[in-house]
Amino acid sequence: MAAEIVNPRSDSEGRTGHTEQDGGAEPLESFDPAFALHRGGKMAVQATVPLRDRDDLSLAYTPGVAKVCSAIAEQPDLVHDYTWKSSVVAVVTDGTAVLGLGDIGPGASLPVMEGKAILFKQFGGVDAVPLALDCTGVDEIIETVVRLAPSFGGVNLEDISAPRCFEIEQRLQERLDIPVFHDDQHGTAIVSLAALRNAARLSGRTLGELRAVISGAGAAGVAIAKMLVEAGIGDVAVADRKGVVSRDREDLTPIKRELAAFTNKAGLSGSLEDALAGADVFIGVSGGTVPEAAVASMAKGAFVFAMANPEPEVHPEIAHKYAAVVATGRSDFPNQINNVLAFPGIFAGALQVRASRITEGMKLAAAEALAAVVGDDLAPDYVIPSPFDERVAPAVTAAVAAAARAEGVARR
Amino acid sequence: MAAEIVNPRSDSEGRTGHTEQDGGAEPLESFDPAFALHRGGKMAVQATVPLRDRDDLSLAYTPGVAKVCSAIAEQPDLVHDYTWKSSVVAVVTDGTAVLGLGDIGPGASLPVMEGKAILFKQFGGVDAVPLALDCTGVDEIIETVVRLAPSFGGVNLEDISAPRCFEIEQRLQERLDIPVFHDDQHGTAIVSLAALRNAARLSGRTLGELRAVISGAGAAGVAIAKMLVEAGIGDVAVADRKGVVSRDREDLTPIKRELAAFTNKAGLSGSLEDALAGADVFIGVSGGTVPEAAVASMAKGAFVFAMANPEPEVHPEIAHKYAAVVATGRSDFPNQINNVLAFPGIFAGALQVRASRITEGMKLAAAEALAAVVGDDLAPDYVIPSPFDERVAPAVTAAVAAAARAEGVARR
Repeated sequence: MAAEIVNPRSDSEGRTGHTEQDGGAEPLESFDPAFALHRGGKMAVQATVPLRDRDDLSLAYTPGVAKVCSAIAEQPDLVHDYTWKSSVVAVVTDGTAVLGLGDIGPGASLPVMEGKAILFKQFGGVDAVPLALDCTGVDEIIETVVRLAPSFGGVNLEDISAPRCFEIEQRLQERLDIPVFHDDQHGTAIVSLAALRNAARLSGRTLGELRAVISGAGAAGVAIAKMLVEAGIGDVAVADRKGVVSRDREDLTPIKRELAAFTNKAGLSGSLEDALAGADVFIGVSGGTVPEAAVASMAKGAFVFAMANPEPEVHPEIAHKYAAVVATGRSDFPNQINNVLAFPGIFAGALQVRASRITEGMKLAAAEALAAVVGDDLAPDYVIPSPFDERVAPAVTAAVAAAARAEGVARR
Repeated sequence: MAAEIVNPRSDSEGRTGHTEQDGGAEPLESFDPAFALHRGGKMAVQATVPLRDRDDLSLAYTPGVAKVCSAIAEQPDLVHDYTWKSSVVAVVTDGTAVLGLGDIGPGASLPVMEGKAILFKQFGGVDAVPLALDCTGVDEIIETVVRLAPSFGGVNLEDISAPRCFEIEQRLQERLDIPVFHDDQHGTAIVSLAALRNAARLSGRTLGELRAVISGAGAAGVAIAKMLVEAGIGDVAVADRKGVVSRDREDLTPIKRELAAFTNKAGLSGSLEDALAGADVFIGVSGGTVPEAAVASMAKGAFVFAMANPEPEVHPEIAHKYAAVVATGRSDFPNQINNVLAFPGIFAGALQVRASRITEGMKLAAAEALAAVVGDDLAPDYVIPSPFDERVAPAVTAAVAAAARAEGVARR
């Protein structure tokens, strides 16, 4: 059967060249409503000043704009006052670790980056621009973002695979005087910590009394471990596919050696299941599954945060048989650990005070503010607010801005 | 007298740290209305899809977005259908040749780039993102833009100094399958040609009967010369600061040697003033001044396009004493040669058909369409439409899209 070949270049009707034969747009849209929603993209740029007549143009563009340019050339800080720099964040990816899809490249990552950008706007009032880069080398990505930095008030790194993401974030922050924030690490860590604080409060315990086990030693797992230690967790062990990360293991990458140095005080070894016996907290950011028997072996009144998407490491129905608090990454169960609770307010707060970086103190303040939104309504199925709770972003923004001032990284 | 020093980092009121002592914002704003207009920048990002509830979020972001990403990963062309790529242009500069201000750097160039971005939106419905780069090397700029290309449907180069701008544009276009367009060259050339076509029509002459002299061998001068030759001008000579560019000169840069090869058929030498004697057309893109005697020496019924800003090379009052048609770059005189007449429609047309580049034929078509808008209202003080004429952008868009199809660079 000879399929009809339509050459897009010869189509004089102005229609897309895609046909059913090449799996084009129309059949996709009838197949799934997400395609219809995404047609033409999800965002746009708008002018915030009038451009109706010559007078408007002569202020917003030549000749009026020349005086503003000259003033910034003489006094570079004025760029924050007279451009959108201090309200716009670059959402930067190389497309190597997109959702659960992996290394799908920059073009295919764009729908996620656009989604991220509009969440910034919707939930934090922050303008954001998706920049999916056609390079994957650490040095290349760093150089590219450094060159782009004059136009932005902050950089949100997104969906860049581990371990490159750690080095890229650290080296970029060393070179730039605007915040650099890898959301897959810190956003997840902040929201997890907020939920854990509230779960502990619910059970009348402090973080210091808890022993946690994290499944997954990628970007999120490493960042959560660091943050739990900074917040004063009793102990935390991280398991990768080969088992618990410990000082005894000889197969560790540099990042995991560092992880071994500040986690697992108890010196556990063996499998994830071994580590879970008697543990108070399970945090899953792995995408694997945890056998029911392992969950059953946890301490009484345990907390299970099974955040893999779309399939949690432990199904909530199973987890509820043994755990006092259950959270997932999914919106169709209670206690959704969703990064959108953190990143819009974190950048809004950092931009508000023109912070030069996002410190550990600012992240901890964000987690505390987020936890505090729950207030007296705290309950096993309500340890973290809804993404649509309008108190969230203002609370996080204010806490982050105040922490930036307290830590001396605010510039106004 | 000890000025009070306010440390921005210690200001707990959330106000800007700038004070009158450091020449900050408030005195600037009382000094000039352009500063008040520019406060906070001139643009924003907006979502074009709803984000009101969980259902919205699960379509625009996870989990719904994953299907769109996967579809693009399998069929890369779908990025044009399901992201904003095909409606967004990068406005890229290195800040080396900003307006008449010169090399003021990326930060200080941002107000111009934002202005450009909102003009794209206002006049062409094209989304645009200002990207002022912190690098000036040709290779660095090219590599950076190549890495950014997956996120954009086109690249508008802006205010990059000559001769680097020529090489950057050419090499970028060779590497990318999206249009790359240096507006300082081609925008100016297209609008100048449109005005010249109408001036010729007004006087009943063809371009082939005219001899033109261009003052300025920078980005605009070179591009205008090329375009006039392509359009069939009788002859055109270009003068730089040392006089007319001719094959005899031994001090020419590679670009000017190329210019000498296809201009100045008459073999003129000497000064700009010498070349103007008996010339039919003067086109000024130099910023210098032309003595009245030189204007007086031009042929009867000459056209004087004195486009330097803010001071035209010849004041219109002087030019009108000798010339049949006078144009400037200023909005407060008739016949304003303004790039905004071209670039919004050019990119709108190119994006509409997903052109892989902007060909000479597309530029010539844009100039013809722009000239045609004037129609029967043609008059000495109306050889080019107003930027606010709503017929302009649709006419240019349609002409450019049609030319792209005719030239085989359209992809739908």
